[in-house]
Amino acid sequence: MSRAVASVALVDRVQAGEPAAIARLISRAESGAAEVHEALARIYKLAGAAHVIGLTGVPGSGKSTLVGKLTEKLRAKGAKVGIVAIDPSSPYSGGAILGDRIRMSDMANDPGVYIRSMATRGATGGMARAALDAVDILDVAGFDTVILETVGVGQDEVEIVRASHTTIVVSAPGLGDEIQAIKAGILEIADIHVVSKCDRSDANRTLIDLKQMLTLGLRAAAKSAWQLPVVGTSTVSGQGIDELIVAIEQHRRFGLESEAGQQRRLAIAQFRLRKTADNLLLDRFGAAIARASAPLAAKLMRREADPYSLANELLNSSLLREPDHEQDPRSKIA
Amino acid sequence: MSRAVASVALVDRVQAGEPAAIARLISRAESGAAEVHEALARIYKLAGAAHVIGLTGVPGSGKSTLVGKLTEKLRAKGAKVGIVAIDPSSPYSGGAILGDRIRMSDMANDPGVYIRSMATRGATGGMARAALDAVDILDVAGFDTVILETVGVGQDEVEIVRASHTTIVVSAPGLGDEIQAIKAGILEIADIHVVSKCDRSDANRTLIDLKQMLTLGLRAAAKSAWQLPVVGTSTVSGQGIDELIVAIEQHRRFGLESEAGQQRRLAIAQFRLRKTADNLLLDRFGAAIARASAPLAAKLMRREADPYSLANELLNSSLLREPDHEQDPRSKIA
Repeated sequence: MSRAVASVALVDRVQAGEPAAIARLISRAESGAAEVHEALARIYKLAGAAHVIGLTGVPGSGKSTLVGKLTEKLRAKGAKVGIVAIDPSSPYSGGAILGDRIRMSDMANDPGVYIRSMATRGATGGMARAALDAVDILDVAGFDTVILETVGVGQDEVEIVRASHTTIVVSAPGLGDEIQAIKAGILEIADIHVVSKCDRSDANRTLIDLKQMLTLGLRAAAKSAWQLPVVGTSTVSGQGIDELIVAIEQHRRFGLESEAGQQRRLAIAQFRLRKTADNLLLDRFGAAIARASAPLAAKLMRREADPYSLANELLNSSLLREPDHEQDPRSKIA
Repeated sequence: MSRAVASVALVDRVQAGEPAAIARLISRAESGAAEVHEALARIYKLAGAAHVIGLTGVPGSGKSTLVGKLTEKLRAKGAKVGIVAIDPSSPYSGGAILGDRIRMSDMANDPGVYIRSMATRGATGGMARAALDAVDILDVAGFDTVILETVGVGQDEVEIVRASHTTIVVSAPGLGDEIQAIKAGILEIADIHVVSKCDRSDANRTLIDLKQMLTLGLRAAAKSAWQLPVVGTSTVSGQGIDELIVAIEQHRRFGLESEAGQQRRLAIAQFRLRKTADNLLLDRFGAAIARASAPLAAKLMRREADPYSLANELLNSSLLREPDHEQDPRSKIA
């Protein structure tokens, strides 16, 4: 059985909710191999039922702990929860912080929770596409809520988290004198703001600062139909978690019923198409470019040539060979 | 005079160190327009003299203040310093934190310092290329040291800072219980570690934790010829800044004299070529993809089609039209 056929066969097993099939299909999506595109195309058409929550914040803002708590509460309400955590991977952490935390908790053996860590390092541009494919795979596998968690500082990471139905930005006290989300440029992407670690005595200051900042921003920005909630939470005392779940549910309904929600889903679809097209384009020529660039790098290092001329030469010779690629399995999907 | 000719004419003025010409050429590099490629190709060949320092750390680690202090000291030694600061831009901050700080200081009217902020938001993939072009422009303009500052969490941002001769990772006390650089996955990219804000009483804990972590990591990793320094600094007391400058100078020499340094410069050249080729490829088809994707997005939103099939259709029709692009000014550079 070819890998393409094998991947398509996985789709049925994903629909049946088989954890091993989910894991395998996400890994194949991560690999970006052309053989998996047909399966992912099917997944995309089957998906659309889950509510996708993007959750972001600077390192140290307590995102993973909050996701854990949120998952517990959603489970208690009967929802199945899928989690895709995008971790900047490091040889030290192995990018498995969230996974470790939840493994230690009661949820380890709960089939209603599925956690997947995806590493950013080494993902050459395809991270956004793969993460959104992973969200769809969990959607098709029957998870009612899918949480996409990422460190909100990088350009790609922020783009991914924006491609969700409800975006939560987490700020925490004690991370310096200023609102970290401003420095990271993620303040304005929030549908819901959370100030975590509200058991700390300095949390009130962060709440006040954030609310002031938002008032200033809202005056400047055009009036929106959505009233931005600011929720203070503590995973120690449990404070605010119920309130957060109410806010999420309200925003989910707002997204389904408002013109703004419709516009957002359209923008997500457009982002998705553009990212996929960009990735397919880089895939088609990427290998040829990588192969050809190694011997040219020495000339470039000595500044005897420039990157623009060399890159143009590379592309022109690759494009001339392009017709061969029409036999590629990707072309048959359409 | 065409824009391409005008850009090339700017190169002479950049070489003469004219601030207005530097500003204009960097702006054109940021725009990614094809007309500027010939000028940037010339810049690349003229560059290579400056020592490029990449400086990164999580938000709140005090990077900008440290860059300011470092610049002061380097100026006092007679070096001209160029700074390229990549800021996640926000409607609130406008991404001008570093610029504001230095404008307020004594360096505002010093022609031996040039500061340029580049925003990440909205830069569709070309950020790395544009930032490295900006570094070269400052190099050609006669700046001896060019500091490339970026928030080290995003995939692209980390890649950029690694494409420097000496990479400094800044950690700070009080940003949570764990070493932030680990969570951000940037611990291992450092040539020099800085623990900032050493006037704080909890800084010693951060220094000890970081050193322990590095000892563990070094045992696991292969032995390197470079002994990784950990420098505690305070921009309040001035502690450690001289020590940091010594460490930078030592690493600069190590880079020039060692086999490892040679390998790194080769890897940077290869990264540069790959990024440029990727950007040129996306440029060639990007406009066509964006144009064609808008009407298709509604179908995609309703899940009547999938992104892979649509992206393939888009690419196939764009590639068929490709020969037109051979008349593009970029092709003439080669």
